[in-house]
Amino acid sequence: MVWTKKDLLGLEELNKQELELILSTAESFKEVSSREIKKVPALRGKTVVNLFYEPSTRTRVSFEVAAKRLSADVINIAAQESSVRKGETLIDTGKNIEALKADIIVVRHSASGAAATLARHLNISVVNAGDGWHEHPTQALLDIFTLKEKLGRIEGLKVSIVGDIAHSRVARSNIWGLTKLGAEVMVCAPKLLIPPAIEQMGAQVTDDIDAALKEADAVNVLRMQFERDSEAAFPEKLEYFKNFGITGERLKKAKRDIVIMHPGPINRGIEMSSEVADGANSVILEQVTNGIAVRMAVLFLVAQAHDEKRETAD
Amino acid sequence: MVWTKKDLLGLEELNKQELELILSTAESFKEVSSREIKKVPALRGKTVVNLFYEPSTRTRVSFEVAAKRLSADVINIAAQESSVRKGETLIDTGKNIEALKADIIVVRHSASGAAATLARHLNISVVNAGDGWHEHPTQALLDIFTLKEKLGRIEGLKVSIVGDIAHSRVARSNIWGLTKLGAEVMVCAPKLLIPPAIEQMGAQVTDDIDAALKEADAVNVLRMQFERDSEAAFPEKLEYFKNFGITGERLKKAKRDIVIMHPGPINRGIEMSSEVADGANSVILEQVTNGIAVRMAVLFLVAQAHDEKRETAD
Amino acid sequence: MVWTKKDLLGLEELNKQELELILSTAESFKEVSSREIKKVPALRGKTVVNLFYEPSTRTRVSFEVAAKRLSADVINIAAQESSVRKGETLIDTGKNIEALKADIIVVRHSASGAAATLARHLNISVVNAGDGWHEHPTQALLDIFTLKEKLGRIEGLKVSIVGDIAHSRVARSNIWGLTKLGAEVMVCAPKLLIPPAIEQMGAQVTDDIDAALKEADAVNVLRMQFERDSEAAFPEKLEYFKNFGITGERLKKAKRDIVIMHPGPINRGIEMSSEVADGANSVILEQVTNGIAVRMAVLFLVAQAHDEKRETAD
Repeated sequence: MVWTKKDLLGLEELNKQELELILSTAESFKEVSSREIKKVPALRGKTVVNLFYEPSTRTRVSFEVAAKRLSADVINIAAQESSVRKGETLIDTGKNIEALKADIIVVRHSASGAAATLARHLNISVVNAGDGWHEHPTQALLDIFTLKEKLGRIEGLKVSIVGDIAHSRVARSNIWGLTKLGAEVMVCAPKLLIPPAIEQMGAQVTDDIDAALKEADAVNVLRMQFERDSEAAFPEKLEYFKNFGITGERLKKAKRDIVIMHPGPINRGIEMSSEVADGANSVILEQVTNGIAVRMAVLFLVAQAHDEKRETAD
Repeated sequence: MVWTKKDLLGLEELNKQELELILSTAESFKEVSSREIKKVPALRGKTVVNLFYEPSTRTRVSFEVAAKRLSADVINIAAQESSVRKGETLIDTGKNIEALKADIIVVRHSASGAAATLARHLNISVVNAGDGWHEHPTQALLDIFTLKEKLGRIEGLKVSIVGDIAHSRVARSNIWGLTKLGAEVMVCAPKLLIPPAIEQMGAQVTDDIDAALKEADAVNVLRMQFERDSEAAFPEKLEYFKNFGITGERLKKAKRDIVIMHPGPINRGIEMSSEVADGANSVILEQVTNGIAVRMAVLFLVAQAHDEKRETAD
Repeated sequence: MVWTKKDLLGLEELNKQELELILSTAESFKEVSSREIKKVPALRGKTVVNLFYEPSTRTRVSFEVAAKRLSADVINIAAQESSVRKGETLIDTGKNIEALKADIIVVRHSASGAAATLARHLNISVVNAGDGWHEHPTQALLDIFTLKEKLGRIEGLKVSIVGDIAHSRVARSNIWGLTKLGAEVMVCAPKLLIPPAIEQMGAQVTDDIDAALKEADAVNVLRMQFERDSEAAFPEKLEYFKNFGITGERLKKAKRDIVIMHPGPINRGIEMSSEVADGANSVILEQVTNGIAVRMAVLFLVAQAHDEKRETAD
């Protein structure tokens, strides 16, 4: 199996073999970050541009660390300061970055499809670091990598995703990735935060948190983005915690070794109690560690595909 | 011919030989960015500080990429976050950066003469990345480099510059550089946007776009900075496009192979139509690519001059 | 003497031997910044994260340059853009950075004790780059390094610190460091800006600037932070200059070779006249130069302690 895609836009368009290739590549890169000298020359002399139209320190820093451990040069562009403010289109910005002879653009954008648009117009690689409510593929990959590391497999697992499913690119990417790899996914949220399309993606749906936890091997608890939404559909914080928050009490009815995940940053006392966040079942910080390995793998694979393509073209 | 200036402040103070040395040095650096490993060790262990008092992602990123491809360490300072806010003078800021044992300051400032002031007070190299309405020498150098690459020479070319000449450091630097290298320059703008001094610089003046295009080998279309100026002298956008915008229709009366340049970012439908911006005559993205080569050359040359000076001094 | 602390939180908790080890290590690193190639591989493959909750270009840049000259990878996080805005706790942010397998966090925070809190919860190294009114240890270390370089010793020196003692972490760190190394410290400020605790730290107190200057071997002039404080206790600028500003006139009554220091950025004409700031007694820019050496030493020492700890643990 050889990786041939120049871009990583979402997990929807990947097949099982491609998903497994990313996971196994990440496995071999994970060791690098535990070395004395955490650096390999894989992307030396390559330029990776982090083009972030939405602020996201966590994701930007994770990609920046990953790229630097591969010895790439990293350029950070925050949209607040960029030409965007001067009315340049996304495609023009992309073409300008391509003209700098950059190799990979890591893009975060508030519009669904932004990464795909860029990728279609550029010859260089585009990695989607979150586009609107569409996909956040590297987040789902690191969730899946962590699950596999913890439980030894994905095939046949029961994974529940709890939270604001309607506005979550993390949920969508997880559903695509997990189901392709043979897991069963159940989503759990207040009824108004479950879009109708979600069942067509292959997930079961519930608004009963106890049902979501009962038989789950793992639960992925999404961040409630109270700061960016004041829609009527949004529950009040304490009410949300009461109905959906993961607590030690609630976990008593779940499997004893249920794996607790969260993409961070956690709202303690809203999505889960501190007891759960810091408890023995939580793999939240391992997810962060694995994010580096998964992003190293993705940057490495798309850069290689790009090189091969170019060699053929020359 | 050996480069001896520690600074690059403007094209006004360079002679023909110096301009040609930068261009030929850039030519040899251009190849680096097409390599598999886009990096040479020329500035390894040197520190380049991007000191930007005005936001400019394009120019900052271009200098950052150039410096990193030369293996320099790059430090970005945005004035918004800097000591400037705390009332430190430009010279004190410069002297502090010098005291860090930085080698080159790349400075963008809203005041004409800011780069020269810094250079006069510091022993380290200063590269002007745009100072007020005065000069933006590396932009003009990349314009000229691109023209020469496209048309094989500068001597004897007719180059028109269209747009807000009054407020344009790009226009001024281009006029200095092009005329020193033997080109004829015509500027074209609404009458209120042409300062009287421009003819003394050796440029012809017109407010008739068709006259500007008719015999030109190349036209350099400036960005209209509608966002930063609400002076009465400023035309309304659509009116500007009607009178000065470059369209396919308008180009029918120009030379068939006229070269279209723009420093970016483009306001599509204001300075030119998309048909022209993306058309066969446009070299706008090649300008961006050449910006890296030209800035690598400038950083390399001033760093060398600095080293030689220091060796003599020691 | 071997360095064993994983963190540098303040000078209060260091003993004389540890202070001297930092100073002698800095001495050997100072030479690196005067080389043609200003880089040593000491921290190659290590990740240093600058986590700044308060903006401070000077300190951030100094740490960034120091880390890069040690060949570390540097990640800058400005709190304005960070997860903090999303309600993440300081400890969660720290644990996330640790999970990235970063090696050192350099933290600036407005709360006294923030660095210590982080250090207590993390296994990786924490360097305090200023925490509230508590300590700013690397600033004091560079002040002391500069003094020692200039006067050959610290033992037995008389050092006066002038300015807003009440709100100054720089003053506190200097008092701890200088007294441990055998210097006598006098602080001088308007009465309302001298906290009662200062005498218990071992410093003499005066509100008479002439008394502070008279027998001093050196005077460390603090920055008056007029921009962040409008308390009633604060003097008016011109009144402050008249009563406490260091002028050439005032220095006539001091020792002829008194050393003038200032952590920068200077408010010229408030804390001191330009004549004094730029005069022969001023070592203000040498302090900046020495800041790199001192920070290289600190980063190197804590990273080593961390490595040794890990080796033992494995």
